[in-house]
Amino acid sequence: MVMAMKNYMMVLSYDGSRYLGWQGQGNTENTIEHKVETVLQRLTGEQTKMQASGRTDAGVHALAQPVTFQLSRSLDCHLLLTELNRYLPEDIGVLSLSPAPERFHARLSARSKIYVYRIWNSPAPDVFGRKYRYQISDSLDLQAMEQAARQLEGEHDFRSFCGLKRFKKSTVREIYQISFSRTGDELALRFHGNGFLNRMVRILAGTLIEVGLGLRSPESMTEVLAAEDRSAAAGALPAHGLMLEEVFY
Amino acid sequence: MVMAMKNYMMVLSYDGSRYLGWQGQGNTENTIEHKVETVLQRLTGEQTKMQASGRTDAGVHALAQPVTFQLSRSLDCHLLLTELNRYLPEDIGVLSLSPAPERFHARLSARSKIYVYRIWNSPAPDVFGRKYRYQISDSLDLQAMEQAARQLEGEHDFRSFCGLKRFKKSTVREIYQISFSRTGDELALRFHGNGFLNRMVRILAGTLIEVGLGLRSPESMTEVLAAEDRSAAAGALPAHGLMLEEVFY
Repeated sequence: MVMAMKNYMMVLSYDGSRYLGWQGQGNTENTIEHKVETVLQRLTGEQTKMQASGRTDAGVHALAQPVTFQLSRSLDCHLLLTELNRYLPEDIGVLSLSPAPERFHARLSARSKIYVYRIWNSPAPDVFGRKYRYQISDSLDLQAMEQAARQLEGEHDFRSFCGLKRFKKSTVREIYQISFSRTGDELALRFHGNGFLNRMVRILAGTLIEVGLGLRSPESMTEVLAAEDRSAAAGALPAHGLMLEEVFY
Repeated sequence: MVMAMKNYMMVLSYDGSRYLGWQGQGNTENTIEHKVETVLQRLTGEQTKMQASGRTDAGVHALAQPVTFQLSRSLDCHLLLTELNRYLPEDIGVLSLSPAPERFHARLSARSKIYVYRIWNSPAPDVFGRKYRYQISDSLDLQAMEQAARQLEGEHDFRSFCGLKRFKKSTVREIYQISFSRTGDELALRFHGNGFLNRMVRILAGTLIEVGLGLRSPESMTEVLAAEDRSAAAGALPAHGLMLEEVFY
């Protein structure tokens, strides 16, 4: 007899500062996945493996990370949500928890994602946002950055913006929109796309910042894409400025 | 011969989470005052004692804490500002630094102050604001709180709202305004007054929250003030929700 497993979806919010990422390499104890699975197992009595919409790197945050998992029995979602939030560390929270359709999968069913990279664009110390923003003291030419962004939007081979050296799968992705918003001294760079390669958002952000600083021309983005070579783009910006903001299904 | 000391003013911003407050009792190593004075001495070669606009308690934050200090020699303020921010821990920052009039004193010259107490008014976990907001899951009757606030404004003997048991000086203060602002799930309580007693803002906030929860009537504020007894008011809310926002001269 085959036991029908029940599928659940929850949305997690986490401050990635203390963790080795969603899933670690080697040491997997200090990962967000491990922390949540451990508490989930203690509360449900079942060992379960979660599927996240995507793995976030060490130090990267998530405002809303959708996750699916399966259990053999039905459970009271409202109660489990409350209990999870009671036992999880305060830098990981569960925003929602509900039954999901049988074939729904947090990663495979995802259609697009929004990542945001936050810059503190001021020489003044960023005491209260320091864990979620990367500081750039020099002024940025936002118009040049916008112009560069227009060339990165669309479907391209983003091999030049991929942190991995070997590619098993296609490096073609589509970026629907790159938008900028300024609130006081904060500059937020939002990337909406159908998928992102390893470190892609941080390398894109780093390259756009070099345009903003006048180190690259907006037109040069076409060449960086065409090079299909990691060394053509800029370095990746630090992890702490990056946040997974929304996943669409 | 009397050496004329030069007077300087700087504005500090700090995340109080890790510290025993502006000035400690007993252990004075882990205080904001000690951290700043140590770096200041290293950079200027002079031992100096700072005057803050007021002492913030352990765990309380400051968006802008004005501080004065005196040195025997003139210095390049812009350079010292940059150096201070380089050597101070990342949870303490200097926003500005400039020469001040001879008789200007951060505490004695202060005319009024604004403190803000932040509430995260939702049952959802507050992953990114957890260090700067106090969570209250139950809904609050803002109208009742506004009504109560009107009775606390003005000049009163705030003995019922003072955390100290013995009073050497007057406990009469004037609150110019208590205002409320809601942004999403955040409720900010702002207190503008000519001065505040020990723990006064946190006790006022705690008492107003009890009104919001329906545990006290707005009208009862008059009795709480008249009692001139600490036990008449509510408990002090936790330190991490409190921030010194602005000092007026």
